[in-house]
This record gives sequence, C-alpha cells and structure tokens, in this order.
Amino acid sequence: MRSFNPVNQKDLVFLKKLVGEQRVATGQSYLELHSADESYHKGYFPDVVVWPKSGEEVSLIMKMAHERRIPVTPWGAGTSLEGNPLAVHKGIVLDFQQMDRIVSLRADAFQVDVQPGLKYQDMNRTLSRHGLFFAPDPGANATIGGMVANNASGVRTIKYGGTRDNVLRLEVVLPTGEIIRTGTFAHKSSSGYDLVHLFVGSEGTLGIITEATLRLVGILEKYSAAIANFESVEDATNTVYEIIGSGLGPAALELLDQETIAVINQESSLGLKEIPTLFIEFTGGAETSLKEDLQRVEDICEVNQSIGFESGVGRDERNRLWEARHQAYELIKRNNPGLSLLIIDTAVPISRYSQMVHFAREAIKKYEIKGYVFGHAGDGNLHLIIAGNLDDPDFIKRRDKANEEIVSHSISLGGTATGEHGVGIGKRKFMAQEHGESLQVMKKIKQLFDPNGILNPGKIFP
Amino acid sequence: MRSFNPVNQKDLVFLKKLVGEQRVATGQSYLELHSADESYHKGYFPDVVVWPKSGEEVSLIMKMAHERRIPVTPWGAGTSLEGNPLAVHKGIVLDFQQMDRIVSLRADAFQVDVQPGLKYQDMNRTLSRHGLFFAPDPGANATIGGMVANNASGVRTIKYGGTRDNVLRLEVVLPTGEIIRTGTFAHKSSSGYDLVHLFVGSEGTLGIITEATLRLVGILEKYSAAIANFESVEDATNTVYEIIGSGLGPAALELLDQETIAVINQESSLGLKEIPTLFIEFTGGAETSLKEDLQRVEDICEVNQSIGFESGVGRDERNRLWEARHQAYELIKRNNPGLSLLIIDTAVPISRYSQMVHFAREAIKKYEIKGYVFGHAGDGNLHLIIAGNLDDPDFIKRRDKANEEIVSHSISLGGTATGEHGVGIGKRKFMAQEHGESLQVMKKIKQLFDPNGILNPGKIFP
Repeated sequence: MRSFNPVNQKDLVFLKKLVGEQRVATGQSYLELHSADESYHKGYFPDVVVWPKSGEEVSLIMKMAHERRIPVTPWGAGTSLEGNPLAVHKGIVLDFQQMDRIVSLRADAFQVDVQPGLKYQDMNRTLSRHGLFFAPDPGANATIGGMVANNASGVRTIKYGGTRDNVLRLEVVLPTGEIIRTGTFAHKSSSGYDLVHLFVGSEGTLGIITEATLRLVGILEKYSAAIANFESVEDATNTVYEIIGSGLGPAALELLDQETIAVINQESSLGLKEIPTLFIEFTGGAETSLKEDLQRVEDICEVNQSIGFESGVGRDERNRLWEARHQAYELIKRNNPGLSLLIIDTAVPISRYSQMVHFAREAIKKYEIKGYVFGHAGDGNLHLIIAGNLDDPDFIKRRDKANEEIVSHSISLGGTATGEHGVGIGKRKFMAQEHGESLQVMKKIKQLFDPNGILNPGKIFP
Repeated sequence: MRSFNPVNQKDLVFLKKLVGEQRVATGQSYLELHSADESYHKGYFPDVVVWPKSGEEVSLIMKMAHERRIPVTPWGAGTSLEGNPLAVHKGIVLDFQQMDRIVSLRADAFQVDVQPGLKYQDMNRTLSRHGLFFAPDPGANATIGGMVANNASGVRTIKYGGTRDNVLRLEVVLPTGEIIRTGTFAHKSSSGYDLVHLFVGSEGTLGIITEATLRLVGILEKYSAAIANFESVEDATNTVYEIIGSGLGPAALELLDQETIAVINQESSLGLKEIPTLFIEFTGGAETSLKEDLQRVEDICEVNQSIGFESGVGRDERNRLWEARHQAYELIKRNNPGLSLLIIDTAVPISRYSQMVHFAREAIKKYEIKGYVFGHAGDGNLHLIIAGNLDDPDFIKRRDKANEEIVSHSISLGGTATGEHGVGIGKRKFMAQEHGESLQVMKKIKQLFDPNGILNPGKIFP
C-alpha cells in the first residue's frame, strides 16, 4: 500500500498563491459536490478542489503534488459510471470547469483543438454551425477530457468509432509536471510510438489532458430510421448479428428490452410497444440507397420473427427516439427513486452477443434481481442495469454475484469487462482475468510515468 | 553508443540446439538475402539468420539474446521502404517465413488469428472464399508481422483505416523473453492501457509479434470507379480537398502525376492520358447511390477544371487500374534501372495537401531532380520518388537537401515525417522536430521494455 500525504496548510497557501483564492476550495459543500459521480460507488471527499485555467498551472500543481506525494484526481463533468473521478485517497481534485474553450477550430481540416473541460454536447452545438460534429457520444453531457480519459463511446460508434479513434493529438501534463504534446494533425502516421492511444483510456492515471485535437466529421442530412419489435430478446439479438453480418453498415443499432421500453414510455410520449426492440438507423448515401438498406433490414427482421417493423420514422420522432435512448440511464434512475443502480458494460465479439445477453438475463432471473437490458448491440456492447436497495444486504450479495458472473462470462467469451465506461473502481477485480501477464506491463508503464503513484490512485489496478 | 556482442560459436550451438541445424544459417548467401530491403539504404549483413516456428522459440532466443546483449531484428517479407528490418548492428535476424499460418478464422466474428510471417495478399486470397478481407493494403505483398510493426496502410485506408485501426489483439514476445497477450476479441473496450496500439507501429523495437488477431470486413460487390484528368497537379489536389470536404466518403482517392502515369502506360495496356490524374472509387450502397456519388464527383472535378472524366469503369479495367497503382513503385524502379530510389512519405492535414504537393514539386524543380509524385491523396499522404545515380555525389547532395526540406515542411504544416512507411533509418533525424518533448517519453518506454536495447537497434531514435 502506498502512503500519501494529506494536503496541509502550506500546500493550501501554495495553491492559493498559484491560482488565486477564489479557485481553491476546502469548504464542505464544494468537497461534497466533488465526492460522488453518477456511479453506485460510495463517495470520497477530497482535501481540496482546485480549478486550473491553463496547462502551466496544472504543471506547477503536479510538480508540487509529486514532490509532496499528494494524490491528484482530475474531474470533468462527474458523469462517470465507474467512480473514475473519485478521490479515493483524498488529496487534490482538479476540476476543469474553467478550461472549457474551443482553442482553434479548423473546419477546413475537419479538426478542432479544445480544452478538457468543454462538454461535448456544447461543443457539437457550436460545430453544427459549420456542418460538423464530433461523433463519439456517451449519453450524458461529458467533458472532452473525461471522454478522452475514458475512451468513451456511444450509439454512433458502430459507424464512426469511439473516442480513441477520433483523437489526433494531445497536450498532456505528466505526473512529474512536464508538459508534452504528442500525436499529429495528419490523419495518418507511422512515426514513433503511439502515445496518444496510450493516454486515451488511461483514466487520468498516466497524465492529465490539458488540450485535445479531435477529428470531426460532416453532418449527414439524409437518414433513415426504423423500429423493430420482437417477442423475445433472443430473436432481437439474432437479428443484430445478421444485420452486422450482412455488411449493411448501420449508423446505429441499439437493443432495448421490454423493461427499458416501459420506462421510456412512462417518461415520453413515444408510445412504443413494450417488447424487445431494436432502434436502427442509416445515414448518408442517396434516398434510394437508404430505402434499399431499410428493405434489407426489414427482410432480416422478418426472417428472425419480428412482430413489428416501423420504418420511415420522421425527423422529429427520430430525434425523440435517440433522446430517449440517450437518457435511458437517467429515466431508469428516475423510475427507481432511492434505489442504487449498478450498470454492467460488457462487450463481446458480435458472434457471441446473443449468448452474452442470454447469460446476463438468466443471471438476473437466477438471483431474482430487477434488471434493465439495453446496449450498443451492433458493437457487441451490453448494458444491464441492476436496481436495488442498498439497505438490503441480501440484495447486495445477489447483485455482486450476478455482476461477477456476467462480467467473468464476457471475458471467457473473449470479451472485455468494460466496453466504454472504463475500469474505475468497479472493474479492477476483473483486470487480472482479462489481461493476464500484460497487466504487469501496464503496471510498469504506470510506474514509469508516475513513480510516486499520485495520479488518480485507486483506479484500474487491483 | 551501446555496445553489443557479436554472435559467437557458443551462441550458434545454442540456436542450433534450440531450433535445429536447418533453421540456422550463417552462409554468405543467406546473410546477403537478409541484408537489404526495398529501400535506398545501404545493406547490413547480420551474423546469423534464424527461422523460428513458434512464440516459445522466439521467447527462448530473446532470453539468450537479452542476456548476451546480442541485437535481434525481425524480418518479414523484406518489402520495407525505410530499412526497418536491416540488422544495422548485426546480430540475429529472425525470419518469420516459417510462421505463416492462419491459426484460427472466425468468419462469424469477422476475425482471424494469424502468425506474423503470413503475407497479406495470400491471406486475403483465403479470406475471399468467406466473403471477407483485411482492408489495409500496402502495395507490396508484405507480411502481417511487418504491417503491424510498421502500421502499414494503403489505398483502402481512407475508408477502412490503417493497420492500427484493424488489429484487435497481439501475442508479443518482449525483449526479455516474456510472452504476453494483449487486447481483446471484442470490437470495443475501455479496459486498461492500450498496449496493442503501442506495439503497432513500434517497428519491432518494443517486442516481437508472434500472433495477431485482425478485424476483417465483408467484400462489397458493388463499386464504381472513375478516372479524372487535370492540366495541373494543383487542380487535381484542389479537387481532392473538395471531394473530402463534400463528405462523399470514397473508398479510394489516389493522385498520380504525369511522370507516374507515363511509367504505368509503358508497362501496361491502360493507355491513360499522360497528365495529372485522380483514381476515384466508391463501394457498397445501392447502384443508384453509387451513380449519384459519381455524378457529384464529376461536378466537383468540373468546377476544378478537369479536362477529362471517365466513369463507369468496368471490373477488369478497374482491377488493372489498382494493380497498376499498387505496382507504381515497382514500375518506376523497373523504368530506372541502376538508379537508387528514395521515397518520401509525408502526410499532412487534408486542408494542407495542395500546399504540400506544391512545395514538394517546387523542391524537385529547384534541385533539378527526377521525381515521381503520387499518393493516397484522400488521406493527405504524399509519395514522391526521387531517382538518381548513387555514383554521382552531387545528386546525393541535392536529393538529401530536397528530402530534408520536403519532410521538414510537412512537419511545419502540422504533418508527419511518415504516413505509412515507418521511421526506420531514414526518418530518424526528423523525430526531434516532429515529436519534441514526447520523444523523450518514447525513449523511456523503449528503455522500460528493452533495457539492453537489443531489439532492432538503430531504428526510430536519432
């Protein structure tokens, strides 16, 4: 076990002198606001919250923290689902709220340089005026820094890739205070080691992102959307597999079980059939091509006993549909007041997706748990929300057993413990099973970058 | 300067005992066969060539080499254009010719596990029987190991990404002999550090790839192709920029200048107009969609003063076209017997492509050099072959100056020294300019993985 130092009066004086009194907070309310994210993990109060305004400030804070062996945990929007920004070992939380600028938009190069505290939905609103957007889209309004640290992805990943695939360049402050810029503005390179991809998804344990260059894509005006209903989840997941196998290339392919649909219906006016459902979308190409794609999808759905297929969804309804899908987590939360939600986030090869979903549903039946199944089916990504009362120790036992069995099963199918939410706190125990000997290599890299282990301690490694 | 040990008699006895006499060669002819790749760099004879048959053998060889401080250089097909597999510091060359199997094809998951010595064209021939292919396609019939080590890409990269984007999992022997497996069979993951992307493009300096899991895509039967001609290269590159900006999403977009076309005409029956030309292709979608895309491209070409546009190219002619493009390097070589070819491989943001090509052409004019300009224009990737006589010291001086100016200019435009050929020997001198402080981080990672510096020494780092 590492030993860290708490933030003392001298440290506070240093911090206040560096960034000014008003950007250093030790008041209980500020600490509490930074003690919990959206996850089911218990809260941790940091010693102090600091709002840096530049990479240089971050560098000086890191130098001090490195020398003093004080933990530093970066904080974006607090929308993490795995405790990633929680100050497990106390110390300093760096809140990037005040580093939220677009530094440079080069629309002609399909690129933007942004600060880490910028929220992606806010950014995309600005970019839309130029006909562009950043494709990775987690449901919540996360910051770019958080998305990069976590390799976030979402419903558009099936077409455009996740965050990792859309970051070209990073400015990073290392745990010892050096500032480096890595990557290239070119869209391809074989020059040197790929440090960009190493930092993406490292959950703020290797360095702090202070600027990111993102690859943008043009907004496609033409689209087609469809909703397909099935009697069983198995029919739906088999359909997913066949759509992917057909090479049709949808822009989104989402699975929602009857429980999730029921919640969406309660909170929206969509009036969806409360049975297992796929949301499917195509974008770009000619009208006729979009229609042809939809026809082929309808044929595949029919072969797999779909009992409803509604296509040609209008723009407004389509937007409401995706809005509802994006808010699924929020809606389920609202529908289960007072209950704790654990969210499973496995991803498996597409050929194993039916098997994975079936296993997960059997597990919640076996442990008599309230569960909601949905996910980015086209990527083999399964979300399963388990809701229950934390005051019921028996529920916690059953929940943890189900979680353990489901995640382990994903790994045994050649899948991963986390498709897009990150390891954070909750997935640490699966790392040895998933990574084997390569976990030791990851530990050595961590040790190389952060010899005192001060950067976001208590995450990723068991 | 590191000091290495030469391979001695005892080492040879060890190697022969390990893999058998017939897979260890010290004969002059074998050493010569492994002394030169396709690049303009001078040859280096290794001490010994070994043909391993398994990861375990590679592991035992690495352990011995690590202890004895003997350089080890992996060898694929020898098609590198930057000296990447040359034994600059002598020692052992590991030739992967006998590790060329498909270990497991999982067509239903769009994945294949292969050994590093398998050549990608041979692999794709097998995969085509399942309607699948591995998309990255350097011109030459490279091995998968070489492609992974080099992050190779090609004409399809604009649609499918480069090698880095299509590798899911690796088995790697570290310089100290440990065998690790890293990555996942899932198509997305946020679990732990991305070691796969770190090894891809590390040019065999961090570990030796002994198995790779590749992501495959379905062969699209429908396609459309076009050839557009321009009076000036500037008109052609401006067209490239506008096609990319239009969001049309071509499957290939290649630039060839008049000199390159002339060579292709001499060696083929294509009868192309000998003026600056774009090869353009679309795949997938409905017939009508392909036609609509072509019409839009034709409009863009016209606005940019194209003086010829031939679309609806038939399958045979289309195949001959790509064959010719793939063989451009070979054809130019054959057309310049006895001359040495240096190939430039810059990549810049697409908004700077016209500027980059213009600068490069001006440089060869200024230095009165014979040059051929072509490249994966849609990716901002420029190839410029400089041909000349190595017996002419003045040519070498002019060539080196032009090379230096062109590559430096690419970096100053926000681009990279190498889009797809790797750093190898020739691009080392540009690493400090391109990577700044992050080059030190790369060096530290190299030192962490390979404390004795035995793995492919003399590459990447200046």
